[in-house]
Amino acid sequence: MTDKYKERRFDTYGYEKIDKEVLESIEYEYPEKNTIVEYITNEFSSVCPWTGLPDNAKLTIRYIPSKKLVELKSLKYYLTSYRNVGILQEHAINRILDDLVELLQPKFMEVIGEFQERGGIATRIVAKYEKEK
Amino acid sequence: MTDKYKERRFDTYGYEKIDKEVLESIEYEYPEKNTIVEYITNEFSSVCPWTGLPDNAKLTIRYIPSKKLVELKSLKYYLTSYRNVGILQEHAINRILDDLVELLQPKFMEVIGEFQERGGIATRIVAKYEKEK
Amino acid sequence: MTDKYKERRFDTYGYEKIDKEVLESIEYEYPEKNTIVEYITNEFSSVCPWTGLPDNAKLTIRYIPSKKLVELKSLKYYLTSYRNVGILQEHAINRILDDLVELLQPKFMEVIGEFQERGGIATRIVAKYEKEK
Amino acid sequence: MTDKYKERRFDTYGYEKIDKEVLESIEYEYPEKNTIVEYITNEFSSVCPWTGLPDNAKLTIRYIPSKKLVELKSLKYYLTSYRNVGILQEHAINRILDDLVELLQPKFMEVIGEFQERGGIATRIVAKYEKEK
Amino acid sequence: MTDKYKERRFDTYGYEKIDKEVLESIEYEYPEKNTIVEYITNEFSSVCPWTGLPDNAKLTIRYIPSKKLVELKSLKYYLTSYRNVGILQEHAINRILDDLVELLQPKFMEVIGEFQERGGIATRIVAKYEKEK
Amino acid sequence: MTDKYKERRFDTYGYEKIDKEVLESIEYEYPEKNTIVEYITNEFSSVCPWTGLPDNAKLTIRYIPSKKLVELKSLKYYLTSYRNVGILQEHAINRILDDLVELLQPKFMEVIGEFQERGGIATRIVAKYEKEK
Amino acid sequence: MTDKYKERRFDTYGYEKIDKEVLESIEYEYPEKNTIVEYITNEFSSVCPWTGLPDNAKLTIRYIPSKKLVELKSLKYYLTSYRNVGILQEHAINRILDDLVELLQPKFMEVIGEFQERGGIATRIVAKYEKEK
Amino acid sequence: MTDKYKERRFDTYGYEKIDKEVLESIEYEYPEKNTIVEYITNEFSSVCPWTGLPDNAKLTIRYIPSKKLVELKSLKYYLTSYRNVGILQEHAINRILDDLVELLQPKFMEVIGEFQERGGIATRIVAKYEKEK
Amino acid sequence: MTDKYKERRFDTYGYEKIDKEVLESIEYEYPEKNTIVEYITNEFSSVCPWTGLPDNAKLTIRYIPSKKLVELKSLKYYLTSYRNVGILQEHAINRILDDLVELLQPKFMEVIGEFQERGGIATRIVAKYEKEK
Amino acid sequence: MTDKYKERRFDTYGYEKIDKEVLESIEYEYPEKNTIVEYITNEFSSVCPWTGLPDNAKLTIRYIPSKKLVELKSLKYYLTSYRNVGILQEHAINRILDDLVELLQPKFMEVIGEFQERGGIATRIVAKYEKEK
Ligand SMILES: [Ca+2]
Ligand SMILES: [Ca+2]
Ligand SMILES: [Ca+2]
Ligand SMILES: [Ca+2]
Ligand SMILES: [Ca+2]
Ligand SMILES: [Ca+2]
Ligand SMILES: [Ca+2]
Ligand SMILES: [Ca+2]
Ligand SMILES: [Ca+2]
Ligand SMILES: [Ca+2]
Ligand SMILES: [Ca+2]
Ligand SMILES: [Ca+2]
Ligand SMILES: [Ca+2]
Ligand SMILES: [Ca+2]
Ligand SMILES: [Ca+2]
Ligand SMILES: [Ca+2]
Repeated sequence: MTDKYKERRFDTYGYEKIDKEVLESIEYEYPEKNTIVEYITNEFSSVCPWTGLPDNAKLTIRYIPSKKLVELKSLKYYLTSYRNVGILQEHAINRILDDLVELLQPKFMEVIGEFQERGGIATRIVAKYEKEK
Repeated sequence: MTDKYKERRFDTYGYEKIDKEVLESIEYEYPEKNTIVEYITNEFSSVCPWTGLPDNAKLTIRYIPSKKLVELKSLKYYLTSYRNVGILQEHAINRILDDLVELLQPKFMEVIGEFQERGGIATRIVAKYEKEK
Repeated sequence: MTDKYKERRFDTYGYEKIDKEVLESIEYEYPEKNTIVEYITNEFSSVCPWTGLPDNAKLTIRYIPSKKLVELKSLKYYLTSYRNVGILQEHAINRILDDLVELLQPKFMEVIGEFQERGGIATRIVAKYEKEK
Repeated sequence: MTDKYKERRFDTYGYEKIDKEVLESIEYEYPEKNTIVEYITNEFSSVCPWTGLPDNAKLTIRYIPSKKLVELKSLKYYLTSYRNVGILQEHAINRILDDLVELLQPKFMEVIGEFQERGGIATRIVAKYEKEK
Repeated sequence: MTDKYKERRFDTYGYEKIDKEVLESIEYEYPEKNTIVEYITNEFSSVCPWTGLPDNAKLTIRYIPSKKLVELKSLKYYLTSYRNVGILQEHAINRILDDLVELLQPKFMEVIGEFQERGGIATRIVAKYEKEK
Repeated sequence: MTDKYKERRFDTYGYEKIDKEVLESIEYEYPEKNTIVEYITNEFSSVCPWTGLPDNAKLTIRYIPSKKLVELKSLKYYLTSYRNVGILQEHAINRILDDLVELLQPKFMEVIGEFQERGGIATRIVAKYEKEK
Repeated sequence: MTDKYKERRFDTYGYEKIDKEVLESIEYEYPEKNTIVEYITNEFSSVCPWTGLPDNAKLTIRYIPSKKLVELKSLKYYLTSYRNVGILQEHAINRILDDLVELLQPKFMEVIGEFQERGGIATRIVAKYEKEK
Repeated sequence: MTDKYKERRFDTYGYEKIDKEVLESIEYEYPEKNTIVEYITNEFSSVCPWTGLPDNAKLTIRYIPSKKLVELKSLKYYLTSYRNVGILQEHAINRILDDLVELLQPKFMEVIGEFQERGGIATRIVAKYEKEK
Repeated sequence: MTDKYKERRFDTYGYEKIDKEVLESIEYEYPEKNTIVEYITNEFSSVCPWTGLPDNAKLTIRYIPSKKLVELKSLKYYLTSYRNVGILQEHAINRILDDLVELLQPKFMEVIGEFQERGGIATRIVAKYEKEK
Repeated sequence: MTDKYKERRFDTYGYEKIDKEVLESIEYEYPEKNTIVEYITNEFSSVCPWTGLPDNAKLTIRYIPSKKLVELKSLKYYLTSYRNVGILQEHAINRILDDLVELLQPKFMEVIGEFQERGGIATRIVAKYEKEK
């Protein structure tokens, strides 16, 4: 019976489809304050590189902006670009952190992924960046 | 600014990618009883035909089997095949109902989709089938 | 002290600002079924005609479509047009029902408003329409 | 030790302090519909006639208006007038029902009181009125 | 190791300790209405007749009074009198129903016991009385 | 990589290990009443006959006893006997219903199984028995 | 179809409509204590400067007063004055902080905005002020 | 319309009705330990000095006793004595702290009031006392 | 009316009925680790020494074992032995702490009692022990 | 009656059935970061060595990976291998910690078991490992 499902393995894209270029920043008017900004979405989705099946997660992006904020619509398109990319959960979270740190140069950033259970086991990943002083 | 996003419009598939053939049934040993069977998933996903953006939903499939049960793994692959199909929410729910009624010939079936909000408005759809007596 | 607030009374619009014209319908492909469709938003807002202060509500629109569905984006703009209109809660709910029944000619429709408390008292209103047979 | 508390027994008012006169109605513009209107407050309070101690409750008033709605501010003042009246919980709920039925002549009315526990026992009372046809 | 616990078996009382005499009724002023009255406590406790160990439950007593209400303080003492009585859960619930029906002659009464789990299994019992017409 | 897991396939027992003999009934003292009795456990477990992996469920057994109650400790041992039996979820629920109906001859019985998700899909099954009159 | 909505773009006000003058303080009688005072509302609303659509939020204002408290009614009118102002969420939160710090000269203040999701992404912002010692 | 409500302004008492004398302490047998004791009630009520309308709160009193505990019944009567006193929320919480610190001389005490919303704004106040060492 | 209840005052036992002897320890195999062990029960019950009425609580026992664990069945019998003992809530919690510290010689122990409300006031007590180093 | 249950004592396996060999690690691409990884399952099950009855738990495994991640499918099979092993709850949690530390050499690891109540008492165990620096 398994053979039928192997044939149906979904095509997945490689990392090159992660659309880093769509990301856009906007000027932040209160750079001297240590304001915390958080974006939360229940709708992140990527694909398991081994089975080709979707991995769905709640995503939290928390940071202290320096001079820039991420523009929300560009963030949505950036996150949606993972939808058909085959990538391990732990690597996806770290990759999002790296791309946003490069864009925003924040004082602090933390990305949290809470993935729905697979085989009865849910996964939660917390990746952090802190600017050296 | 909108132009950039128009260029990035995601390719969506047509209805022909809905994988009805993967569905499989198994014999049900208690056909004389009016047993209620329900499958619930938080991870249904299709694509809006107009914007190319994902539509995520909680799906409930409730039925009174006659002689057949749907095989769960085949159901998972069937539902996953909607992932990149452009289809209106109301039509997706009715289509799932039609495909499963054709497969199982149940005494009763109900498919419920609870879609995450878009523009601040969430949508809930309940489609029903009742065998004529 | 009250005088200061009287001066600051917010301007409110009359019923003519309720934007019924923006509403648009789309063809529904399963008119023969008694499918239930529901839209839910936590963000409805109108203005108390006496105090000029906002009245916020959770709104549920539930119906059995006949030949038409309401287009979601047009619904959002229609509901947003109440934002600065001075209208009693009970009347707003009945007015929404009337406008949507006129647009969609559904088999059944129900509009529910759950307004946040004022003076410690919350209000819930359920208005219904049923097509004569 | 009990004597001290007996001395401190709070003065309670009789039924004559229930301020029925403050109640005001407003015209309802949709009398032909069977619209359901509900008012909910967590802050109703009266006094136990035997101990002089406060009885606090969540109150729900549900009705189908005929030609009148109760004005919300007058309702608040009416309910607040029970604050120092000594009255059994079961009688308070029935009295509220009677006063509002007299004022509004509704098609249907139901008053529900959910009183906080005394001696580890919470009390819930549901009193109903239905217009004879 | 079990022997030690057998020795320590708690003494339990027989049914004669159920203090039916403490129950008191008060006049109800609205006998013509079908008002529903409910008492809810999380603190009912009796003892398993076989193991001598406590059985704890949430208890709900719901009725439509005819001419009498049960006095709340007397109800508390009545329920507390089960504390050291050895009685099966199903029988306790039915006994409470019988004692209160005898006292109050209500139009309807229902007693619900929701017992904490034993051996991983919780028990819920619903006993009902309806006056013959 | 899959081969390693195939080798490790857990041994499962056949239906003959379902320990119907352990079940015991006790006399019920209120057979003339239509009392509802419910047992609820979060800890039911059987094994998928195809993968050999555990299937865990919340189980609710609801009935109106005629002359007998099931003894709770014997019920616990009966349910635990499914722990290593390979049986489809739908069949397990119907089998439990049949064994208990045979033992107790109730007026009515309903067994509900709410199984934890597999492949992102949870399953709920409701099997019913009603005595012919 | 978009054109229709562009025409309907809501007029939004500039920052000059933020009614800082309405704010009023009252004397605080316990200035020597480090008492924490918090105001929480679910009903804050401003307007997105780009789309003209409402942005709704839960707002928490937490501070340690020095010599003054904000008068609650004046705070309500101040917050309501944002209702039709076009302002970025991050800037609104910082602006509220600045206006209240200027009014109250507190020892510490923190303003938290939890905005409802847009495009499936909710935003939470925490802005802080601490008096230099 | 407001005039009617002005006439009905409730009489409120001054601070002299706060019944500090009713408070009683009992000996604490474990003064050498840093045990934390907390009392929680959902039923605190005082009156707004400006409008004469009730202010209801959840109250938490947390302390580390030194040699005395407050007697619970006397605490209840003390708290109930605020029922008709006109006092600002922030001042009520600090006053309760002062009275109990004077009575008990605790190592630490904290009083928290969580007041129900007025004008859509809820208030939470935390007042603290710490013994000097 | 009170007299009747005075007569019915429940007999309560003295401290000598607290069954410290039933407690048993078992060897702990990981004494070098700082493992935290917690036992939680919703079913603790003792009796108020003044009124003879039951006091029910949720109990949490948290410790870092040194060389011994408490045997769970013996703990259950120990806790059940408080059922008819008249003891102040604050003293019961401290007494349980002392008995278990004597038995187990843990590195750290904390006992928390969350008692159901009496007179509308719930009580929470946290008693701690820390081994001197 | 107990004898019958003694005969039915379930066979349990010894520690040698804990399938440490099935565990597999995968390379982690971000070893320089202090990323936190967590796996959560509601479906852990082992057997009480004294009664032969199942012990069910929620399990949380939290760690900071150094160079390796545990492969999720191998983790599932490892955890499932405890299903028929007789082992004390406190020892099972410590054993899982030891096996995973040996496999992954993480910078930090914590295993938490939250076991369902037995005899009305639930158990929670937290075992920790921290790499020496
Ligand atoms: Ca993976
Ligand atoms: Ca759509
Ligand atoms: Ca949402
Ligand atoms: Ca109004
Ligand atoms: Ca009463
Ligand atoms: Ca029993
Ligand atoms: Ca429990
Ligand atoms: Ca299956
Ligand atoms: Ca789940
Ligand atoms: Ca924005
Ligand atoms: Ca105030
Ligand atoms: Ca509220
Ligand atoms: Ca006490
Ligand atoms: Ca309570
Ligand atoms: Ca054990
Ligand atoms: Ca449980």
